[in-house]
Amino acid sequence: MKDKNPAVVRTNVLRCVVGVGPKRRADALAREEPLEIRVRGRSIAVTMRTPGHDDELAAGFLFTEGMISRRQDVVGVGQCLESDAPENTLNVFLAPKVEVDFDRLTRHVFASSSCGVCGKASIESVHQHFPPVGAPASPPAGRGRQQFADGDAGAPRIRAAILAELPARMSSGQRAFARTGGLHAAAIFDAGGRMMVLREDVGRHNAVDKVIGHGFLKGKLPFTSHILAVSGRASFEIVQKALAARIPIICAISAPSSLAVEFARESGQTLVGFLRGRTMNIYSCPERLAW
Amino acid sequence: MKDKNPAVVRTNVLRCVVGVGPKRRADALAREEPLEIRVRGRSIAVTMRTPGHDDELAAGFLFTEGMISRRQDVVGVGQCLESDAPENTLNVFLAPKVEVDFDRLTRHVFASSSCGVCGKASIESVHQHFPPVGAPASPPAGRGRQQFADGDAGAPRIRAAILAELPARMSSGQRAFARTGGLHAAAIFDAGGRMMVLREDVGRHNAVDKVIGHGFLKGKLPFTSHILAVSGRASFEIVQKALAARIPIICAISAPSSLAVEFARESGQTLVGFLRGRTMNIYSCPERLAW
Repeated sequence: MKDKNPAVVRTNVLRCVVGVGPKRRADALAREEPLEIRVRGRSIAVTMRTPGHDDELAAGFLFTEGMISRRQDVVGVGQCLESDAPENTLNVFLAPKVEVDFDRLTRHVFASSSCGVCGKASIESVHQHFPPVGAPASPPAGRGRQQFADGDAGAPRIRAAILAELPARMSSGQRAFARTGGLHAAAIFDAGGRMMVLREDVGRHNAVDKVIGHGFLKGKLPFTSHILAVSGRASFEIVQKALAARIPIICAISAPSSLAVEFARESGQTLVGFLRGRTMNIYSCPERLAW
Repeated sequence: MKDKNPAVVRTNVLRCVVGVGPKRRADALAREEPLEIRVRGRSIAVTMRTPGHDDELAAGFLFTEGMISRRQDVVGVGQCLESDAPENTLNVFLAPKVEVDFDRLTRHVFASSSCGVCGKASIESVHQHFPPVGAPASPPAGRGRQQFADGDAGAPRIRAAILAELPARMSSGQRAFARTGGLHAAAIFDAGGRMMVLREDVGRHNAVDKVIGHGFLKGKLPFTSHILAVSGRASFEIVQKALAARIPIICAISAPSSLAVEFARESGQTLVGFLRGRTMNIYSCPERLAW
């Protein structure tokens, strides 16, 4: 059944309480549909996603995979007219001078080199395209802005109290989650804790691609003084995508994986997990935070 | 730091309470490492997974992708000796007569045909390889076993009270989750609610591949009278993998997606979500359950 929100599908469900029996009732589901992304007439990815902001998803995917780097690389994003399901097939039109490595697009970033497959090799493979973010040139002091050593200058020192407020701010924007319980969310906050954009998706990585793709299409990248917050766990992939957008601080409501922590440490990113209530775990680069 | 459990990495973390400040403490992380799966010398997939039961993961992946179908298709699974990280590269040795469609392996199951990309096309594409499971030949009665119409005979009628007990039984087996908070779990139960196998992984789909791969390698497939329980949400991919193993009942602790529900309805599978306490939502084929 259609719903006003494209991220939601209405359905009927039997709600059952053991010992009482089932009762029919209306319910809402998180919408999941495939999206095919095409570049120069070639299909480069099919991902299961929640419809809505597909242009951001496609741009964010290409950007975090390292295929495009500047706003002017993308001339436009449009639905494919050849298909019977045009809303699920997107063409990303690139500027003629952009060189596309189709092999890389279909193989993902994980290296499978002579040195073998391991977390270390995965991190090195990402760093070939996206170098670590800058560390403070000198020990930061106070609550003011801090100059950084390299191109990612201006990354701020943030009070932990601001981070503690992010889950509630994010939660107020998770409209489809509130109805379905079935969506991940990602949001970008500025250094003052103001939410710039929030996106929901059945796929955690898609939600992150959407908020980064939003920044890309609006010409707001790099996010050098921003925070990425995610509603669930932080995997390698999430922290890697944040690095592509030069995001220095990543906050997860739930647990990070070992490789997410290792990646964040080697990339100079501050990774915060279990951000709940007034407590949090800091896994890397605590020098960006002020207590 | 090494831990006795290969799914766990020990680390140090700053535990911070706003207003109190940070305190260093030991913590445990869910291990995430890439795994490369090779067939006949060719790399067919690299997945981020939690080490442990990699042979099951590889076999389950090939089976649920439709590349292998019978136990005798696999001669052996072994670490690749050529690599510097042998534990992260697995060779699956197939019987000579098994024909491998490498294009299919690298493209995933989602159809990108002339009919367009949509949920319906995805479901039809899966059904070409894995037909729906059998429905009861006549309305079932009582708590006894029920004969079914097709090859999936013997799928049982299950009391909802048994389903309500599964989360607690699963939870007692989630050893790495208990320490890290960062792993998904999947488990196979028989019709009486006895847990046959449970596996944990940072990737939800990997945990499902592992329990199905376990059944495959032990010669226990198809799971025609079994239940798949997952610790989180149920996506299209999870229900599709269950169908490959002929599993008639899927239970999720959290929400299903719209496409998971649509897929289960068209595949004759019973999909239960929000299985918590004594309550649950039944999204499809309730006739397999008894109140």
